Amino acid sequence: MRAIIFDEKVKFVSDYPDPVCGEGECLIKVHLAGICSTDLQIVQGYMGFSGILGHEMVGTVEAGHPDWVGKRVVCEINCVCRRCDMCQAGLANHCRQRTVLGIAGRDGCFADYVVMPELNLVEVPESITDEEAVFIEPLAAAWQVVKQTPVEPRMKVVVLGSGRLGLLVAQVLNTFGCRLEVVGRNPNKLLMCEKKHIQSTHVDEYVPHNDCDLVVDCTGSAEGMELALAAVRPRGIISLKSTYAGKGNFDLAPAVINEVSIVGSRCGPFGDAISSLVRRQIDVRAMISKTMSIERGVEAMQAAADRDNLKVLLKINPR
Amino acid sequence: MRAIIFDEKVKFVSDYPDPVCGEGECLIKVHLAGICSTDLQIVQGYMGFSGILGHEMVGTVEAGHPDWVGKRVVCEINCVCRRCDMCQAGLANHCRQRTVLGIAGRDGCFADYVVMPELNLVEVPESITDEEAVFIEPLAAAWQVVKQTPVEPRMKVVVLGSGRLGLLVAQVLNTFGCRLEVVGRNPNKLLMCEKKHIQSTHVDEYVPHNDCDLVVDCTGSAEGMELALAAVRPRGIISLKSTYAGKGNFDLAPAVINEVSIVGSRCGPFGDAISSLVRRQIDVRAMISKTMSIERGVEAMQAAADRDNLKVLLKINPR
Repeated sequence: MRAIIFDEKVKFVSDYPDPVCGEGECLIKVHLAGICSTDLQIVQGYMGFSGILGHEMVGTVEAGHPDWVGKRVVCEINCVCRRCDMCQAGLANHCRQRTVLGIAGRDGCFADYVVMPELNLVEVPESITDEEAVFIEPLAAAWQVVKQTPVEPRMKVVVLGSGRLGLLVAQVLNTFGCRLEVVGRNPNKLLMCEKKHIQSTHVDEYVPHNDCDLVVDCTGSAEGMELALAAVRPRGIISLKSTYAGKGNFDLAPAVINEVSIVGSRCGPFGDAISSLVRRQIDVRAMISKTMSIERGVEAMQAAADRDNLKVLLKINPR
Repeated sequence: MRAIIFDEKVKFVSDYPDPVCGEGECLIKVHLAGICSTDLQIVQGYMGFSGILGHEMVGTVEAGHPDWVGKRVVCEINCVCRRCDMCQAGLANHCRQRTVLGIAGRDGCFADYVVMPELNLVEVPESITDEEAVFIEPLAAAWQVVKQTPVEPRMKVVVLGSGRLGLLVAQVLNTFGCRLEVVGRNPNKLLMCEKKHIQSTHVDEYVPHNDCDLVVDCTGSAEGMELALAAVRPRGIISLKSTYAGKGNFDLAPAVINEVSIVGSRCGPFGDAISSLVRRQIDVRAMISKTMSIERGVEAMQAAADRDNLKVLLKINPR
């Protein structure tokens, strides 16, 4: 089958072996997939991954349990053991033995087919298009911020970073009516905020005042943390979404002095993501910069790394 | 008056001007003071402070409101405005305009006299000796850990660092009956844990397993964070007590992947500290390595920096 793989470098291959469906698993024909910053970080060495890239997708089940065959689905990306201490404690996303679609120990979805456990599948409602469904996984990650830190209207909230994840997080936060500001670098992306009536500020003009109840770091870089520490109020919360290859150089003394909580945040609830798309609370279509065929996947990865672009989609087997 | 000051270097002076008592303030004759790691960090450039060092003390009020004169007191170290947004929000320790005894904008207590606002004074019960009372401020900081993160018996808790603060934090945690382990470097300090029936492990023999509900970083160094991230379980908490001059080089990706909360922790409740001393729940006397006269303050600072020593006290005007 066709696939975009990473093995020291990114390449398109047309002869990757078809995956085989095991017990309790389904074979999914991938319609459309999305390129995420994590994919770009993996190519920089993050997670030490090699294999088929990609974890954002929508497809149709072709083989597996008859209840699933023919259904259009998205997939929760953590494949878990359901036996370890974390699974038993209700923290299955943190399973000690997990594999993660296109991120850790399991081939991803930039391919004609992907195999996933039935328990990871979520059926997509008919009112959600494929172009929207491919955003469910990252939108769920955006929802995780408010699952971990309840947001109320009186709160002053800043999102650092106006990239793919930052704009999803901002839209989610905006549904809570908080006093919201997005701090970013790219004028087009900041304009997109303004169109959605979200206050936006260029990072060069942003003056932090240690007065935000919540700061969400979606910069995807080590620089985000120091700005977040300057923006958050004493006893406030920094939701840390940024992962990147390598170490950052931080002065964490402000976190101690101001008794700040830095809360790491990863995958989130698919249910909230789907509901917010069904209710048209979140607009993801405006975030699609390009849709390219899987054959042009290497080029698509480069396009996704271009700061002028937001989401780049890979057309694999259109519905 | 006599004082230990920091102005590019640490020195003893005998002719420092006596402090003057303002409206709502008291003049306190200092009996005994304690040297804290923060004092040692200040001398390395932390906080950019200059003036009289020291913030751990016990003394007797000599002038001020008649209700206070003659009383033996300890002092909460944050001198606050009671008007700013933080003070109004009940977070006075985070006052925007605060000065902090011997740490920020206010002369400290390594001197014959110190002036403090009445509202900062706490009377010391007669059953607490001066040698114990001088530990109230750091012991309150240790109590702050459990004020921010409730601790229960089933929890697995590791304290990183067996120094002055680490041993106080460990003793506080031990009153909660949790599964406690102290990881440190100095055999004598680890032996002190064992005597108190607290499990202790040398850092070179400690193998982190991402299985602790709570990790308290009292290492006072940047290295503590990476070990803490390796020790804490997914969705667990790192209580960050370490402050130090300069930046640390961290990989915070494990905090995101494991959705860890890093909670900065500073000053704490004097009431709990005093109660636990009155009830003899905490043994501070065994932690006194040396008591030296204020004239030998420079030498005492060096002694406090020696890893073989725990608390070094300055005898100023013994009761």
